[in-house]
Amino acid sequence: MKLYDFQLAPNPRRVRIFAAEKGLNLETQQVNLREGEQLQEAYLARNPRGMVPWLELDDGSGIGEVIGIWRYLEEIQPEPSLLGNAPESAGRTIMWCTIAENEGFTPLLDAVHNEAPNFAGRAAGGLEKVEQIPELGPRGRSRLGHFYKMLDGELAGRPYVAGEAYSAADITTLVTIDFAAARLEVTVPDDHANLKRWYDEVSNRPSAQA
Amino acid sequence: MKLYDFQLAPNPRRVRIFAAEKGLNLETQQVNLREGEQLQEAYLARNPRGMVPWLELDDGSGIGEVIGIWRYLEEIQPEPSLLGNAPESAGRTIMWCTIAENEGFTPLLDAVHNEAPNFAGRAAGGLEKVEQIPELGPRGRSRLGHFYKMLDGELAGRPYVAGEAYSAADITTLVTIDFAAARLEVTVPDDHANLKRWYDEVSNRPSAQA
Repeated sequence: MKLYDFQLAPNPRRVRIFAAEKGLNLETQQVNLREGEQLQEAYLARNPRGMVPWLELDDGSGIGEVIGIWRYLEEIQPEPSLLGNAPESAGRTIMWCTIAENEGFTPLLDAVHNEAPNFAGRAAGGLEKVEQIPELGPRGRSRLGHFYKMLDGELAGRPYVAGEAYSAADITTLVTIDFAAARLEVTVPDDHANLKRWYDEVSNRPSAQA
Repeated sequence: MKLYDFQLAPNPRRVRIFAAEKGLNLETQQVNLREGEQLQEAYLARNPRGMVPWLELDDGSGIGEVIGIWRYLEEIQPEPSLLGNAPESAGRTIMWCTIAENEGFTPLLDAVHNEAPNFAGRAAGGLEKVEQIPELGPRGRSRLGHFYKMLDGELAGRPYVAGEAYSAADITTLVTIDFAAARLEVTVPDDHANLKRWYDEVSNRPSAQA
């Protein structure tokens, strides 16, 4: 199996960190999104949706979308569990993965995709023709601030985003914070002590280098 | 356990159909979203996020977000599997759930939340203060059309959205089509024969009444 990857993009990093936490050494191949390699025929023959990451399986078929790839990797390498392995922890972990995605990661991408000139005409990512809406820039930035504040409150009561154990919800949150700082210069406010304590810990795990 | 539900809203319907497919009879309690009952103290004491659906467990804790509740129900009642029960089907099912959510259901809600006067000031749903961006109405409608066309192509090659078996990805797609028709008057074009064949079948399953 092989991961089609782009080192600078946030979605493939979510897969790389997940694999690193499981001790899985995935063979990777870079697809240069800045040069539009994902829109070229060679890549579209592999993944007609033109999206990265894409996990190609040994039979030539593949799985896309971060949480699709996560679920596949969790099934083939259950330990350590990153998606929860009992009914309640599984439900709650996916709940927090979804909240981090909808209230943090997606507003971040909304801002990037609707502000950055290189996304003109494809503001939803992928192959779909979608014009930018500049107002989504400030909305995304403002929603990120709301997400950080909400999380700071949540992390007063538990060590990790989804509960007592590190999980995929921490991965989405870490990647959101790092990419928002790099691309939007939106950072975690100094008075968010719980979120900063959490950030220091998870960004010092070896997987954060992935 | 008890499902906090609102009969007219699309997200709780996704949970009700899922439960019906599994033969689970969930006790439900209506939360009238049109009258803002989810923002009142009694409900916020249960679910501080003010979102519906919410699955309250017997110990008083709860799980929110549709796919969090789905995962919990799949764990306690594995058959019939609606999220895939082998590595590849599990990964591929979640991939298609995510595509249906990101490319169909979310654009639909974007349009509704940014067009309907009753969402003024809370255009992301939930408690967060978010002003409407009217341009998201036409963008959402246009993206829905793109989603239907893409799916029509996919369904030329297989019976269900995620593959050979009915799954949660079909539920999200069905609820998207029905709610888009009811709220936005966006319907599946007549020339989308594969999507129409699929729609006729899944909407005739008894679970579609849920």
